Amino acid sequence: MSSKEGLDKLRSEMRNITANIICQVQRRMELSKQIGEIKTKLNIDVMDEKVEQEVRGSILKLSKEIGMDTEFSGRLLNILLIESVRLQQKKQQYNNSQLTHLGIFMKAKQLEASGKKIIHMEVGEPDYPPPKNVKSALAQVYDSGQYHYTETKGIPKLRQAIAKKVGNSITDDQVIVTAGGRFAIFSAFISLMKSGDEVISIEPAWPAYKDCADFMGAKINILKTTLDQQWVPNIKKLEEMISANTKMIVLNYPNNPTGKILKQNDHKKIVSLAKDYGIYILSDEVYSDYAFNGFKSILEYNYDKSIMVSSFSKGHAMTGFRVGYGIADKDIITKMTKVQATILTSVAEPMQYSALAALEASPHKNIKLMKKRLDIISNKLRKMSLAFVEPDGGMYIYPQLKDDTEDDITLVKKLLDLNVAIAPGSGFGDSYRQFIRVSACQPEHVLEKGLNILEAAMFSG
Amino acid sequence: MSSKEGLDKLRSEMRNITANIICQVQRRMELSKQIGEIKTKLNIDVMDEKVEQEVRGSILKLSKEIGMDTEFSGRLLNILLIESVRLQQKKQQYNNSQLTHLGIFMKAKQLEASGKKIIHMEVGEPDYPPPKNVKSALAQVYDSGQYHYTETKGIPKLRQAIAKKVGNSITDDQVIVTAGGRFAIFSAFISLMKSGDEVISIEPAWPAYKDCADFMGAKINILKTTLDQQWVPNIKKLEEMISANTKMIVLNYPNNPTGKILKQNDHKKIVSLAKDYGIYILSDEVYSDYAFNGFKSILEYNYDKSIMVSSFSKGHAMTGFRVGYGIADKDIITKMTKVQATILTSVAEPMQYSALAALEASPHKNIKLMKKRLDIISNKLRKMSLAFVEPDGGMYIYPQLKDDTEDDITLVKKLLDLNVAIAPGSGFGDSYRQFIRVSACQPEHVLEKGLNILEAAMFSG
Repeated sequence: MSSKEGLDKLRSEMRNITANIICQVQRRMELSKQIGEIKTKLNIDVMDEKVEQEVRGSILKLSKEIGMDTEFSGRLLNILLIESVRLQQKKQQYNNSQLTHLGIFMKAKQLEASGKKIIHMEVGEPDYPPPKNVKSALAQVYDSGQYHYTETKGIPKLRQAIAKKVGNSITDDQVIVTAGGRFAIFSAFISLMKSGDEVISIEPAWPAYKDCADFMGAKINILKTTLDQQWVPNIKKLEEMISANTKMIVLNYPNNPTGKILKQNDHKKIVSLAKDYGIYILSDEVYSDYAFNGFKSILEYNYDKSIMVSSFSKGHAMTGFRVGYGIADKDIITKMTKVQATILTSVAEPMQYSALAALEASPHKNIKLMKKRLDIISNKLRKMSLAFVEPDGGMYIYPQLKDDTEDDITLVKKLLDLNVAIAPGSGFGDSYRQFIRVSACQPEHVLEKGLNILEAAMFSG
Repeated sequence: MSSKEGLDKLRSEMRNITANIICQVQRRMELSKQIGEIKTKLNIDVMDEKVEQEVRGSILKLSKEIGMDTEFSGRLLNILLIESVRLQQKKQQYNNSQLTHLGIFMKAKQLEASGKKIIHMEVGEPDYPPPKNVKSALAQVYDSGQYHYTETKGIPKLRQAIAKKVGNSITDDQVIVTAGGRFAIFSAFISLMKSGDEVISIEPAWPAYKDCADFMGAKINILKTTLDQQWVPNIKKLEEMISANTKMIVLNYPNNPTGKILKQNDHKKIVSLAKDYGIYILSDEVYSDYAFNGFKSILEYNYDKSIMVSSFSKGHAMTGFRVGYGIADKDIITKMTKVQATILTSVAEPMQYSALAALEASPHKNIKLMKKRLDIISNKLRKMSLAFVEPDGGMYIYPQLKDDTEDDITLVKKLLDLNVAIAPGSGFGDSYRQFIRVSACQPEHVLEKGLNILEAAMFSG
């Protein structure tokens, strides 16, 4: 048989198989719909981790038997599962109108536009200004011609300065300057995972991790922590969650929203697990400037599959400049750079020079101020007999509401009517409807006023 | 049978079907590899549009027969096809080391860092400064506290000013301010298409459209235009390319790299086609400030599925500020805003205020200057007897190399050794190896010097 005939024959088989796949996927979708309908009748949640794990196990076994790449089959399965859940959820009426701190912030902004004066205890945006030398950096941008396309991974001077700041023998080719910390996270997710891969996140958590995973079709698996356990993650449970498709674990300490810092022993165990299973660790350390005790960066573990993410938004009070960075192995930085080239070309050069100037200043004063404010909030919450963990760092406190309080969303809406904006706990994970996040990004007297209104609202029945 | 039993039965069938799908996809991958091997032997290109169209036609027919959503089956098919091509390409040795204008720019920057002086005729970055009042806008950012998170779709004042500038009764809720024109394109692609959808692009074209499509797993279908046809797209061919999965047509006039503006009659026909088939039109009008004759914005067609994209980079010479915008129906803007919220939170506020200041200035002087420079380049190229189309606008000329000239990459590398950076034609489409793009973003005497070196290099054999 000639190659040409062989080609025709293979193509014909290919056509039949393709048609067959399409038919079976269609049948699968129909089954999915039917299952969704029955679940709605039986009032069963669409997501069923146990059933999913069983399916995953059997597909893994099958793939090995037929000599299929298990990573690829796992991804394919996840794509089908995500599609199923989507189809089933359509059938169920979801009233979980999720409201995050950002949603409340936007509502508060609208109220302000209509003339109201709002106390902002919802948003993680410092009220104090960036370092003074940022002012002169901005003033000289025009005459210095610092407004061109730059290297996609950032101007060399800024990368060198960041490398120096983070220490741990990091060199500038291990640094990418990104359009905010959020973009560092996004580009790490999308350059290191494919749709259908799995990422483990520890809740309560900043919603960006879940948003980025959903966006790219990765499956996010949640390890829940509780106030009772002092927000300490259960490492045994974490290990049980790792599958052949788990590609990344996200850490965020000092934590948003709890203010917790991971104990060094647990940190070590997680890094060791990641090493054993060859999993990336993305460590969001954006609050590390505000770490009051016992903080250790992922960089100190010298793990070649780690990505440290930070930004100028919190420590240097430069939220609106949108400059963040990622620190990782050179090859990871190259991948993240490719994503930034495709989506953004480069980060605004005037903002990079502003960040460079900011690095000359010490955030020491900000840290002292933040600590004092968190103490004020803690004292007040204690007087109100609310349960919470004293923060080890960060800019927030995450207290539990009293048993007899309505849920977080009801309270938060009530407070907004009283001109106080506070973030609902459920914005950081579905299972935290009995929590709120109080942000310390306001002057003391404003915080006190806001807390008094909170107290009155909670105890007025 | 109880619902519970029904559920178990359905789940069991689901498991079998899932296993079956996995097995068949594996078989499909094996066939793909074999086909790739034969193609390599026969020296056939991996991409085969005709075979693909046949497969697509038969799957469309099948989907209708089994009552499957044809849009979904088409997407699924494209995902399988993309995976096949990827697998087959691995087998073929590609030496097409694609070099774009951006690649040359980066190489030129490296040479400069090592002390060389390069004439930049490769990059689309004006050499003249942004409007003067941008300077004062930057200087007052710090004291005005214009450095916070903003509304994700941009500060109201800037959106209002952009709405006013573009006219056509556009209101500010039809405007999104983005982190550069590139991000407007990316967010439109990703919010309006799914992986497996198809987008039509007219080549030669700025590579960003293809990059964004590849990034999100959309299939890009190329309508080639030729110098012989004065770069006029064949509308009949365009219509033939439209399938059930075609979601978007990308237009870019004045064109990068040819400088061509679409004839109004052709423009009208394309809009009418898009309406008939319900396809989005993304119109990248970033060079519209530099339109010398006969330009008509997509906004004038009042088509509710159009997205106009522009930026401050070219007309206002503000490349490094990374501020662009999209104009579209309110619902499209909402979708694009969601993407920007997930990936970036918001655009740097100091950059938004700089853009706002720039809008007060007229780009009139820049336009006159650019026209004059393009005339100088045209005259020189004519003297060199190179074939090209006189540009209707934009910042570039795209001449064809003489028959006896080596290909674009060889020439471009030779020129770089002579300290002149010029963009290879193939960076704008695989079939343009006999072209180069000459950028007019340098003072006249520099352009003249660069062109003389180009002439010497081309005619020195």
